[in-house]
Amino acid sequence: MKNRVITISREFGSGGRTIGKKVAEELCIPCYDRELLEKIAKESGFDESYVQEAGEYAPGGFLTSAFSRGGSAYNNADYLWNIQYGIITSLAQEGPCVIVGRCADYILREKADCLRAFIHADLEFRARRIVEVYGEREESPQQRLREKDKRRAAYHRFYTDIKWGHAQNYDITLNSGRLGIDACVQILRELY
Amino acid sequence: MKNRVITISREFGSGGRTIGKKVAEELCIPCYDRELLEKIAKESGFDESYVQEAGEYAPGGFLTSAFSRGGSAYNNADYLWNIQYGIITSLAQEGPCVIVGRCADYILREKADCLRAFIHADLEFRARRIVEVYGEREESPQQRLREKDKRRAAYHRFYTDIKWGHAQNYDITLNSGRLGIDACVQILRELY
Repeated sequence: MKNRVITISREFGSGGRTIGKKVAEELCIPCYDRELLEKIAKESGFDESYVQEAGEYAPGGFLTSAFSRGGSAYNNADYLWNIQYGIITSLAQEGPCVIVGRCADYILREKADCLRAFIHADLEFRARRIVEVYGEREESPQQRLREKDKRRAAYHRFYTDIKWGHAQNYDITLNSGRLGIDACVQILRELY
Repeated sequence: MKNRVITISREFGSGGRTIGKKVAEELCIPCYDRELLEKIAKESGFDESYVQEAGEYAPGGFLTSAFSRGGSAYNNADYLWNIQYGIITSLAQEGPCVIVGRCADYILREKADCLRAFIHADLEFRARRIVEVYGEREESPQQRLREKDKRRAAYHRFYTDIKWGHAQNYDITLNSGRLGIDACVQILRELY
């Protein structure tokens, strides 16, 4: 399996998803983001909103309700992780694509020819963006962003044992707030 | 003061210095690396090799020999840091430039319009490079690299209180081993 895949990890509100979509569009390859969620929901039998939340909580939180599967204690988070692992591996086998989030960088680390990107931006940029683009109406978007960041980092650390946001874990990291969304798209497209 | 400055932090052996020189050449602006060392040595009265080593040791190590200066206890490392701080600030005031290492990203954080880059690569790439390019003959270049990394990170943390190599502290981080030196040069030149 040697397909070129771009994996995009990102801070919430940094525009990572938008960047992924645009890069994929310009390269005429598929981008898996929400589609990934749908696939995991379908295969697991869980609701999409549950799968989405699960991707941001490290076991120990609301996902620890263990259930018996094949005789061994097994929790929902592990069950979803295994499905996610299988789906991402298959997608990379099918052909070149962009995969946003869901630890794809880690899952494909020795399986595909990946360009591993991390997109981040400062709190002010992201707070403005989640209000403008996503219509978030929280009183303190900064507080919400900090919580999201913490959860994603914990989830990533739990399943991958690598530190989220450390430059050394990626081929490229980009500050979308400083460089602009379009410049990030251009750089990734040209690197591909 | 609003000059465009590119600051390059880098892991030892990653080619950060070479990238800085090439970017500066292509943009026809000066690059300060060894020149910085010379300036600090000249102004401080210390030997260049001493200044070089000092830039990689956080106080607590060989630089703790305090001497009296203006009545207060003051160690060599702090003395050199203040000189370095002043020189880097002046260089950025003089005009656009590339500055390699020496915490320039931190020193100029609110003083200049900076593009803050971090260059890294995996141990194998860097080990090969320090043997080939710098002619290092250590039996274990990997071990030497790990020590260098640790020292630079500690120095950075001591004086800047920000974590070296965390994506969030830079506008862009690049894995020169995976992307190649020339691609890194091109990206930084185009972003400038």
